[in-house]
Amino acid sequence: MSRPAFAADTEADPSESDAFVAAVLERMAAVLPPEDGPYPLHEPHIDGAAWSYVKDCLDSGWVSSVGEYVRWFEEKLVETTGAAHAVATVSGTAALHICMLLAGVQRDDEVLVPPLTFVASANAIHYCGAHPHFVDVEPVSLGVDPTALTAHLERIAEMRGDVCFNSVTGRPIRGLLVVHCFGHPARIAELAEVAARFNIVLIEDAAEALGTSAGNRSAGCHGKVAALSFNGNKTVTTGGGGAILTDDDELAELALHLTTTARVDDPFVLAHDMVAFNYRMPNLNAALGCAQLEQLPELLAAKRQLAARWREAFAGLGGLRFIDEPSWGKSNFWLNALSLDPPYATRRPQLLAALDAAGYHCRPFWTPLHRLPMYQDRPMASLQVADDLAARGFNLPSSAGLIRPGTLPIFDKNG
Amino acid sequence: MSRPAFAADTEADPSESDAFVAAVLERMAAVLPPEDGPYPLHEPHIDGAAWSYVKDCLDSGWVSSVGEYVRWFEEKLVETTGAAHAVATVSGTAALHICMLLAGVQRDDEVLVPPLTFVASANAIHYCGAHPHFVDVEPVSLGVDPTALTAHLERIAEMRGDVCFNSVTGRPIRGLLVVHCFGHPARIAELAEVAARFNIVLIEDAAEALGTSAGNRSAGCHGKVAALSFNGNKTVTTGGGGAILTDDDELAELALHLTTTARVDDPFVLAHDMVAFNYRMPNLNAALGCAQLEQLPELLAAKRQLAARWREAFAGLGGLRFIDEPSWGKSNFWLNALSLDPPYATRRPQLLAALDAAGYHCRPFWTPLHRLPMYQDRPMASLQVADDLAARGFNLPSSAGLIRPGTLPIFDKNG
Repeated sequence: MSRPAFAADTEADPSESDAFVAAVLERMAAVLPPEDGPYPLHEPHIDGAAWSYVKDCLDSGWVSSVGEYVRWFEEKLVETTGAAHAVATVSGTAALHICMLLAGVQRDDEVLVPPLTFVASANAIHYCGAHPHFVDVEPVSLGVDPTALTAHLERIAEMRGDVCFNSVTGRPIRGLLVVHCFGHPARIAELAEVAARFNIVLIEDAAEALGTSAGNRSAGCHGKVAALSFNGNKTVTTGGGGAILTDDDELAELALHLTTTARVDDPFVLAHDMVAFNYRMPNLNAALGCAQLEQLPELLAAKRQLAARWREAFAGLGGLRFIDEPSWGKSNFWLNALSLDPPYATRRPQLLAALDAAGYHCRPFWTPLHRLPMYQDRPMASLQVADDLAARGFNLPSSAGLIRPGTLPIFDKNG
Repeated sequence: MSRPAFAADTEADPSESDAFVAAVLERMAAVLPPEDGPYPLHEPHIDGAAWSYVKDCLDSGWVSSVGEYVRWFEEKLVETTGAAHAVATVSGTAALHICMLLAGVQRDDEVLVPPLTFVASANAIHYCGAHPHFVDVEPVSLGVDPTALTAHLERIAEMRGDVCFNSVTGRPIRGLLVVHCFGHPARIAELAEVAARFNIVLIEDAAEALGTSAGNRSAGCHGKVAALSFNGNKTVTTGGGGAILTDDDELAELALHLTTTARVDDPFVLAHDMVAFNYRMPNLNAALGCAQLEQLPELLAAKRQLAARWREAFAGLGGLRFIDEPSWGKSNFWLNALSLDPPYATRRPQLLAALDAAGYHCRPFWTPLHRLPMYQDRPMASLQVADDLAARGFNLPSSAGLIRPGTLPIFDKNG
């Protein structure tokens, strides 16, 4: 019995691999004509009121973090996500850092986190003097696997009173940082149950997931706190920026205090009451963000349409899998992704080089964080799925601008 | 013998104090007519190419940290300060934090720092897990007092090999963070000698001191590394922003690496080789910064002229002292300051309230950092001068825009 092309479970032979590269290039060209390239991985799409708001900001002189656009941007984020509060920050990393503090993460704690994510997820934990404790992902959403997590915690967790300890290291496991990878919603409902069972604080890294939802709730509205990012490579950008989301009034107030150097509220005394940070988003960046958020429905619609084209283009091709929206939610399709079947994994460098040469700026998945020198000695579960996916996956050009905006029906994010 | 009005060494009586408040208000009005107020403490002055550069940035879509304006801004900073390298960051606090790391500050080290400064100076030390060790200032520049510092170190320092230890706490004293307070140059040449004698790394907090110099060198070019700030309240603003200055090629490269998540330079591998930060200034903010730096000579000239008016206005009035440019350098006169003579110190709240009611948004000096709850138990020298100055000083409205720009000869910063 002959095996199907590009889908064997041993390494593909070189000639087949060359044919595979050619086949991938052909499918790429069907979506994005090479003559119109090169195609960056992800570019911002700046339009609408961007210049008008930014110009107003310059005209007013209120470019710094004390300014009307920051509050307006936060109001728009509340409206967009359904969170009770949003606190705008200077970066997604800053938002993640503050989320850790809001979750009560302290020195020598551990925070569960997947290794298939941008390095900021682990760095934010490290900034608190705590340790990332890596747990595996599942192949549908690329997010934390609730089943594997449960099995891991059943093996190593030990409740002392109402605090979950890692019985191996003796350290408290304070939080679970769930990443919505590439904008696909993680299995957040099941993960919330696991976190509740072990009394671990659920934190969402929704840096890539503005516009994403699971069930009927936006990404960032399932845990105690969440972080968004508005870096230049995100669906919506403020140049650099982020935000903290929470439904908790007190935590929102603390988030604002922690991001604004913990200044004591007294015009005649210049004092600060705790160690805090200079993490507030400047008004200049928020002005751009307000215009960007007004464009969000259109951007999401364009990204959804682009994803449909990628899905269709690669549908008939053996040897790889389009990472698609999971059944339990809606993706913002921030970065479209392909996963090579095992026989083709070793050809990824060759394939990426060929794609790059043809003007398609694709990107391999992150080196999983437990493989990085500074995180290789941290506590970890079996990370077989993450290791496997990291070796086989790559992202496709995903800018909303690749679909001509303005020609699409407005996309209802909950529809 | 009758004592001179407003200059006694005991507390002034209430009626004299009321007269004093009236006298201060009169002098204020001579510089800034109350009918044209209110006068904020410090406002940005946005002019020149600001709109053109920022619009170009939006038009290009390069709003994030990968962009031409960031490099250009750094080149302009090099040109302005004479430092060999400048690395633009998201805030002055971020720059200070990275300066600490570049200076080799590690957990459980101590860093000498004055308490009369913005809280970020101590926070940056704390972020590294190190301890601020507070040392006193002198009343001319409000910067660290080299004589008092020498006496303190002679008392407590113990050289073990080439490392200076605090013999009381047993911790290494790794750095000396010199603050150029309100833009006045500290006694940096003498401080550099003290640091060299005890083999302590000299770091400059030049957050307030762009355009300031001591001897023939700009503030920020005397130590191993220095931090600048471009917050909205600074002489030059990028909304929020900062920069690291250094003459050391390797430290400059490390600064860039540390501020950009320590990404490994390989297009086909997405990895990071150390714990680092997302601290790079976005292009959008740098575009504004480029225009602002082009205005710097004019802004400095305006601020110098405003300082001359404040100096003149308060010259004949007993009971207070205008904190003036010291003989050993040039000030950028970021924030003009008055120091009340001891009998009037207790009247400061009343005076500030009266000034505020008249539309003059003055500000008391910072609560000295060793009086803040999170820093009160740190190592410290005698801090009598800092405590005294902090209780008596306040800042005056100091915006460059209070002098009509464009009507002044260009100010030569070395002239």
